[in-house]
This record gives sequence, C-alpha cells and structure tokens, in this order.
Amino acid sequence: MSVTPLERLAARIAETGAPLCAGIDPVPERLPAGIERTAAGVAEWGSGIVAAVSPHVAAIKLNLAFYEALGADGWRALERVRASVPSELIVIADAKRGDIGPSAERYAIALLDHIGADAVTVSPYLGEDAVEPFLNRGEQLVYLLARTSNPSAPRLQGERLADGHTLAETVAAWAADRWPDGRVGLVVGATAPDELEAMRAAAPAPGFLVPGIGPQGGDLDAALRNVHGTAAPGLIAASRAIAAASGAQDWREAAAAAASALQARMQVAGATLAGPIRTP
Amino acid sequence: MSVTPLERLAARIAETGAPLCAGIDPVPERLPAGIERTAAGVAEWGSGIVAAVSPHVAAIKLNLAFYEALGADGWRALERVRASVPSELIVIADAKRGDIGPSAERYAIALLDHIGADAVTVSPYLGEDAVEPFLNRGEQLVYLLARTSNPSAPRLQGERLADGHTLAETVAAWAADRWPDGRVGLVVGATAPDELEAMRAAAPAPGFLVPGIGPQGGDLDAALRNVHGTAAPGLIAASRAIAAASGAQDWREAAAAAASALQARMQVAGATLAGPIRTP
Repeated sequence: MSVTPLERLAARIAETGAPLCAGIDPVPERLPAGIERTAAGVAEWGSGIVAAVSPHVAAIKLNLAFYEALGADGWRALERVRASVPSELIVIADAKRGDIGPSAERYAIALLDHIGADAVTVSPYLGEDAVEPFLNRGEQLVYLLARTSNPSAPRLQGERLADGHTLAETVAAWAADRWPDGRVGLVVGATAPDELEAMRAAAPAPGFLVPGIGPQGGDLDAALRNVHGTAAPGLIAASRAIAAASGAQDWREAAAAAASALQARMQVAGATLAGPIRTP
Repeated sequence: MSVTPLERLAARIAETGAPLCAGIDPVPERLPAGIERTAAGVAEWGSGIVAAVSPHVAAIKLNLAFYEALGADGWRALERVRASVPSELIVIADAKRGDIGPSAERYAIALLDHIGADAVTVSPYLGEDAVEPFLNRGEQLVYLLARTSNPSAPRLQGERLADGHTLAETVAAWAADRWPDGRVGLVVGATAPDELEAMRAAAPAPGFLVPGIGPQGGDLDAALRNVHGTAAPGLIAASRAIAAASGAQDWREAAAAAASALQARMQVAGATLAGPIRTP
C-alpha cells in the first residue's frame, strides 16, 4: 500500500495538469503587513502560502537558507511549514548539501527523517559519497545540482573537460548512468535555455527540477519543453514569482492567483507539448 | 582596535605552536556514558570537549550536519557549543553551503551573524555568487572546498579539463587569483598526499584547511608540509581523532590528551619545517 514519492509526484502532476513546484522562501523584512517579522511570523506566512497555493501545485520547495537565517527558531518554523503541506504534494528540502559520507548521513537524518522531506537537492562536488546516504534511507528523491540558474554558474559548470563536454553535462550524464531508476533528478536552471536543451541531450531520462523562471528571467517555454515526456517526472519551480505577489494585505489570494496563473499556463503548454514518453 | 579573524588565527597558531583545529561532531549514540542522548547532551558534551581541547588548538570546527540531525534542538545545541568557545580561538562553521546569491546571503546571515562564526566552508560548484555573500559582511574567512578527503572525491574533482589541470586544481587557482587577500583558503584533504602537493603547486598562497588525518587515514606529515609557510595561515583538522578518544568516563581528559599529543607532534614537525614564508 505504500506509495513512493516518485509515484505520488507523477499522480499529482497528472491531477493538476502542471509540473509546478512552489518555493516558500521567507524573508522577514518582506513579510506582508500584519505578520510579525519573527520566526513565528515566518511559520504563519509560510503555512498560509502553502494552504493558498496547494490546490495548484505538485510540490512545495523549502530553501533551508531562508529558515536558517533565523537560527534554531527558523528551524522550528521550517518544521511547522513542512507539517502544513498536504500529503498528496511532495516536499523538497532545497538544502544543496554536499559532504563526505558520515556527514552526508547526518544531513540525510536531518532532512529525510527529521524534516520528513520527500526529496532533497544535493551538490555533486564530492561525488557519490555525498549522494548515496540520501538514497539509502527509503524511497526519497534527490535532485542533483547540474546547471544552476545563477549568473556565475558557468564559472565551473561551464568548464569543458578533455572530452569536450562541460562539467554540467558530465554531472548530468554521470547521474543518469549511475542512478537510472528515476530517483535522482537534476537541477537545471531556466536562465540558459540553450543549455537546458544541451543538458537534456546529455541526460535524456532524469526528471529536471527547473528553477529560474520569474524574477531570474528564465524561459518558461524552454523549461516546459524539457520537463515533459521523461520517465521520471520533472518540475518547474517558482519562488519569488509566487511569493513576490504576496506583499499586499490579500497575500494569500495573491499567491493563490499567481500559482493558478502559472498552473493554467503550464496546462495549455502541456496540451501542446504532450507526446510520447522519452526513453533513455 | 578590532582584530580580524585572520590576525587572531595567526596569533593563536604562534601561541600554541601548532596549526591544530578540533572538530566537534557529536553523534548522540556515541556520547559517553552519563551524557543524555539528546540535544541537551550534545550541548553538554560539545562544550565539555571545547573546554578540554582549547588550550591546545587554534580553531574549533563545527560540522553543521551533526547538529542539524537533531533539528531545531540541534541548532540550539550548536549555538550553545559555539558560545562556549574562548575568544582567542576562531570558530569555523563547517557547513559546505553553496547556493545562488540571494540564498547564499541568507546562509551568510545564519552562519556569520546568527552563529557568529569566524570562518565558513563553502562549496565552489555555483561559482563566486555562492562565495561573495560570506566575504561581504565583515572580515570573516571562507574555506572553499577544493580537494576533499572522501573516497569519491576524485569523481568530479579529479576530472581533467581541456588544459590538463584537474577540476580541484582549477578551483584552487581560481580562488587564489580571485581573492588574493588571504581571506579565502582551501579545503584540501590529507588522504591523497601527492594531491596535497599538486594543490599547493596550483595555489601557492592560500591557507589550507586540511581534514582527513586520524580515522580517514590521511598523512599528517604531508599535511604539515603544506600548511606551513603560507602568507595566510593553514590549519589541520582532527575530529574523530579527538572525539573518538572521549568515549570513556574520563572523556574530557581523553580529548585533552589527544589534542595535546597532536599539538606536540605538530610543534616538533613545525620546528623542522619552519622556513621562509612562501610567496605567491
């Protein structure tokens, strides 16, 4: 009777018709009027946004940086926001951790057991030692950083290896080859649309988690072309695009409207793009 | 009158005669008999080890994974252990974070402002966006992961770029070139002694933070040869080598003895190795 996070994610994307992931990244100084600029306020706002956007999304992504900035109280707020997520959605702990084996195991306990995340983002720089402790505890998913959405991403990720491939493509091909069961996806930013295509060519099978649409200026259409049709489902993440809409007094309604608009746009594009499942 | 972390580190290494950094990485199940296997016990043990080893070391390194495994209570314990560190030592938050700019800024708030770390470890995979928020808040130090001590480190770090250098060497040379003021050092493991030399050749100036001696099997002599003589001081980190000695009832004395023995060995080697400061 147990349903894996991968099965839950596929079912939820089918139900909503959109591979939409809402990022809940609270900054106390930007909370709406009437919400305390404290960890308690962060928890109230985060849970409120979760409730508002849940009907429209398949996943909730919590970037740990925004909670840790408040220390232990911020971690408590993170626990409360996570607990508010409906069980049909998956929760991604966007932690970008990457450490040696014994430490990675402690991070896996923190994020999978303690926070109860269904998926985590992991940095590939230390190799498989940093990844496998997250895969060995159960059925949770890993999204490995491959081509990130930030301006300095190319500094190392764009370096070409002796075989002519970039480091990002090498990470993608390595992950696809080493973990072919669909539980390891790739983080590939929407801010470099041509690289999205190159990454898909390097790794046809893994699901992509695509940040960078909205304020970062990424290309939603390119993102949609590259999250559809894979054996493991992909996701497009919107954080500031949803939360930025929520500064006003009607912050819940504003966030719901932003999520609904993205869902509708993805549904339309999906109808156009729908095609045979890609095979590796 | 303000003394920077770099000045404090140099003064403390001169005072103790040893570039020794003690890692305090609590695992509840391995705490000594008589200590609660809870966050409160972790704080008690961590503060006790700090007090015991402080006379012998220049720096205390706290790997966040071991605290986060206990969630918000673990973060509270981290705050307590950090608060127990004498002000003449520097505190390294071994967090290996690496995120896009706005998120890296939140991590900098968490680690530098909230925890009050003097230095942090950072992953280079996202380029300078992930590093600079840690340099822009004050005078704190960054140790950038270059060649880590774990078995799968070579998977990506050992990949050769088109110019024949490894990715690890490329990271080292990039960091040395971009941040030449001594505030950005490199994490280079002692488990691959020949690579320690290669990394030093690639980046003559930065201070190295060298983990991997002790249970990981690293080469202390090679580590010592490569932390001495740089303009920015280097450090050799021992975590399990110190904490593993502390399982018995006399755990404070055991940790102090382990730290003292490492200090003495480094003092002897330092007398042999002492020579002119390397210049870039």
